[in-house]
Amino acid sequence: MTNAPIPMSVPLRILGLDPGLRRTGWGVIAVDGARLAHVAHGVIAPKETLPFAERLLVLFEEIAKVVETHAPHEAAVEETFMNNNAASALKLGHARAMAMIVPARAGLPVAEYAATVVKKSVVGTGGTTADAADALAVAIAHAHHRKLRRIGAAA
Amino acid sequence: MTNAPIPMSVPLRILGLDPGLRRTGWGVIAVDGARLAHVAHGVIAPKETLPFAERLLVLFEEIAKVVETHAPHEAAVEETFMNNNAASALKLGHARAMAMIVPARAGLPVAEYAATVVKKSVVGTGGTTADAADALAVAIAHAHHRKLRRIGAAA
Repeated sequence: MTNAPIPMSVPLRILGLDPGLRRTGWGVIAVDGARLAHVAHGVIAPKETLPFAERLLVLFEEIAKVVETHAPHEAAVEETFMNNNAASALKLGHARAMAMIVPARAGLPVAEYAATVVKKSVVGTGGTTADAADALAVAIAHAHHRKLRRIGAAA
Repeated sequence: MTNAPIPMSVPLRILGLDPGLRRTGWGVIAVDGARLAHVAHGVIAPKETLPFAERLLVLFEEIAKVVETHAPHEAAVEETFMNNNAASALKLGHARAMAMIVPARAGLPVAEYAATVVKKSVVGTGGTTADAADALAVAIAHAHHRKLRRIGAAA
């Protein structure tokens, strides 16, 4: 007769994304009650010599692989810092759209966080690159804010 | 004994897209030598009350249906007019990315045309809405420019 403990809850996996046309950082964390654990992270950097549509395609397909591999339950995307250059903002919008549409197609809720909400310092050290660290920070911000969002008390 | 003429070429179908978050126009034309024929057109207007990621998802899925239904060989997207508002440009970038990624994923070459190249007046009359007319105009612009593009003589 086995008497193994039945897990009360499956840790929630959150995918954080810090989108950019040149470099899109991603990070996956697991949330188990108040505990957060690092699962994986990486950076997607499409070749800049590719035609624009193909650079988007690389972002789309690589983010899709991350979603497939790590099966996150929710996604969070940073409202990346933007200067007043409309042409730059337009390009960034394309990259950011890849970070939103892939999880959305997989049925994940996609939250958005302003850079000011994302405490980058939290994971600014360690072995990650800046892009991946930012992505992990977005995931952590979502772990902290998601319950508040659900009751409509905060963004 | 049948003696039906053997077609020398299959008409090339071009999908033109005039992207926008509120309204994305699309139009398909067939090119047979110097002859252009209207195939279909329409407008995709995601509900503005939907969350942002879901509005993108509607654009993605509806454009995918157009590609599936009309099986275009090439796609052309307008470089939509943009003012200097970076926040507006960022949003537009998201919508425009849907117009590029769907044909790109289907293996279609995706050309981009500045609004100044697209002669909107060409199809500005008739039974189409403004958005669909603009999309058809993009497709027509591509029909006129694609050979020049191939030999690298024009954008």
